Amino acid sequence: VKKKILFELRKLSGSYVSGEALSVQLGVSRTAIWKHVRELREEGYKIGSSSKKGYMLSAVPELNENEIKNGLQTIYLGRTIVYLETVGSTNTYAKKISLEGCHEGTVVVSENQTSARGRLGREWHSEGGKGIWMSVVLRPSIPPESVQIITLAAAVAVVKAIQYVTGIEAAIKWPNDIILNGKKLCGILTEMSCEMERVNFIVVGIGINVNHSEEDFPQNLRKIATSLKIFSQSIKNGDSHSYNRSAILKRLLFELEQMYNVINNCPSNKIDVDLNTNGNAVIAENSDSLTKEDSNSIVNEWRKYSLTLGKEITVIARGGEYNGIAVDITSDGRLIVLANDGIKHEILSGEVSIRGF
Amino acid sequence: VKKKILFELRKLSGSYVSGEALSVQLGVSRTAIWKHVRELREEGYKIGSSSKKGYMLSAVPELNENEIKNGLQTIYLGRTIVYLETVGSTNTYAKKISLEGCHEGTVVVSENQTSARGRLGREWHSEGGKGIWMSVVLRPSIPPESVQIITLAAAVAVVKAIQYVTGIEAAIKWPNDIILNGKKLCGILTEMSCEMERVNFIVVGIGINVNHSEEDFPQNLRKIATSLKIFSQSIKNGDSHSYNRSAILKRLLFELEQMYNVINNCPSNKIDVDLNTNGNAVIAENSDSLTKEDSNSIVNEWRKYSLTLGKEITVIARGGEYNGIAVDITSDGRLIVLANDGIKHEILSGEVSIRGF
Repeated sequence: VKKKILFELRKLSGSYVSGEALSVQLGVSRTAIWKHVRELREEGYKIGSSSKKGYMLSAVPELNENEIKNGLQTIYLGRTIVYLETVGSTNTYAKKISLEGCHEGTVVVSENQTSARGRLGREWHSEGGKGIWMSVVLRPSIPPESVQIITLAAAVAVVKAIQYVTGIEAAIKWPNDIILNGKKLCGILTEMSCEMERVNFIVVGIGINVNHSEEDFPQNLRKIATSLKIFSQSIKNGDSHSYNRSAILKRLLFELEQMYNVINNCPSNKIDVDLNTNGNAVIAENSDSLTKEDSNSIVNEWRKYSLTLGKEITVIARGGEYNGIAVDITSDGRLIVLANDGIKHEILSGEVSIRGF
Repeated sequence: VKKKILFELRKLSGSYVSGEALSVQLGVSRTAIWKHVRELREEGYKIGSSSKKGYMLSAVPELNENEIKNGLQTIYLGRTIVYLETVGSTNTYAKKISLEGCHEGTVVVSENQTSARGRLGREWHSEGGKGIWMSVVLRPSIPPESVQIITLAAAVAVVKAIQYVTGIEAAIKWPNDIILNGKKLCGILTEMSCEMERVNFIVVGIGINVNHSEEDFPQNLRKIATSLKIFSQSIKNGDSHSYNRSAILKRLLFELEQMYNVINNCPSNKIDVDLNTNGNAVIAENSDSLTKEDSNSIVNEWRKYSLTLGKEITVIARGGEYNGIAVDITSDGRLIVLANDGIKHEILSGEVSIRGF
């Protein structure tokens, strides 16, 4: 009923809706309507009331389950949302519920993370109420070696969603940092649970700095981290702009779902599991199952937004660093580096710094 | 105190130990001693008592935490044991406690599994009290691509432990089924949680059929499954022999720890994580971090027990089957197959049947 009341108020947002009309339409008492309105107010909805005219929705909270689902264009991503005020880490929470069997597409989103982590166990600063801290649960039928393509897709989805909602064009530093003005705007941490030949589930953790001011970052991060709000100030003569996190999150889920459909429905990417005449599962040899053709559309999108390709870079590798040029990425997401000594490297992971940054 | 009483009784197993002596030695009342003895009896320890002579241990249960730890030769594998009467699946349980931060080397062992699984979600029959159903938690510093070597090591550890305790020589069907007399004796299911470049944890699930009679297997499995007990009958003129599961499990942990030390301590196999001057973690390029040299000792052991190498096999691959000869395995555990059409394949996973089986 509460959702229906919100739906009706939203339809006539800015105008009054009569309490009696709501009561008749939804088949509940006026007292019940009143109780739900009170709850909605507690959740941050600004609802005016007048004994004569009824109720009027004048403002909605920026981020909660209702606001994410309102106008969400996806089929399955974000159809189950776990919205939390505070959590240790959305990835850890998502891994736990994945193990317990949650649906594909479940999204965990939290206003605060008390022990957020980036890749390799690094700390990630999660200022409360300012960012999008979320994790998406996926259960693709692809072999573990192919999972990097999902990380690339997530990076592309973040850039496209930000561009769509805010007009701001960010770029991707290989493999999946989102950079604005030379500073980090967003980090992505993909984790998976798998057997040798099959993925159980993937958790894609995404952290986007949205409405942070400079002072929301600890001193040591101010030179290397930025937010959409801080960036908006730099382009608008000092006027800063706050952005609606639900809008960005919704668009992100939509963009990600489009690309994930390509990855997950592409036959050459699947592990074929059929039953043979003995009733045993028959699976495909997957040594060549990396998504050559079908990942190309995603890799091409990734190339468009890449900050790394064509640049002089430094690779920090075992036994020392080397310099070279980032030439391209492979269809499975490895960075191809032509080192200054003429040797070509394919890097699956590691530390790459772009010269001049 | 209970463990100390058991320890003292075990030292003089078959002889009486005076209750008063125990009471003085351990600094507890004779009533307390009596209570603990009663508990031990409930756990399956046969302890005789005589008001004059005291207590005598005459028999111990075949499998429980105490029996596994008694005489265990490992440093860290099995130092924490979760012994359960019944569990859905030891792997699922182990994944859950791994996520919650359990120690490396933790072993989950259960008398019964109600929803045991093999590779690719296949059912696994876990007859209560007859087998070793266990999962080992590991937290190696190796990249996800190198994890297959741990599965090979586990297979070798099983074969060696069985040989050590029972004298029975089983063999390994690639990648990690243990075969006796052409039938399946043991299956191994390795699962991991990882980032793209680093393993969070690995759970190695091992199921060994030990003391099953033919009739303990469902009809449809009798042609393809066997146990140590069934096999002992075939070699001893009809006399069957039951084996001590704790003894096999202990030796298995010892053998696995030896090999795991090689894998995990080998520098070329590690992801180097250091802190650079900015306090950022610096990790190695791991595109070439597969365990070439250091995995050789394990791969060599695996070759010794292999049933597959040198045999004519059928590979069931996407788009059909092909026949060929299993030539070798690579240092990272892929099977090298020379197909009858002259093409060489390297298989990471899949269905392989050996002709004549």
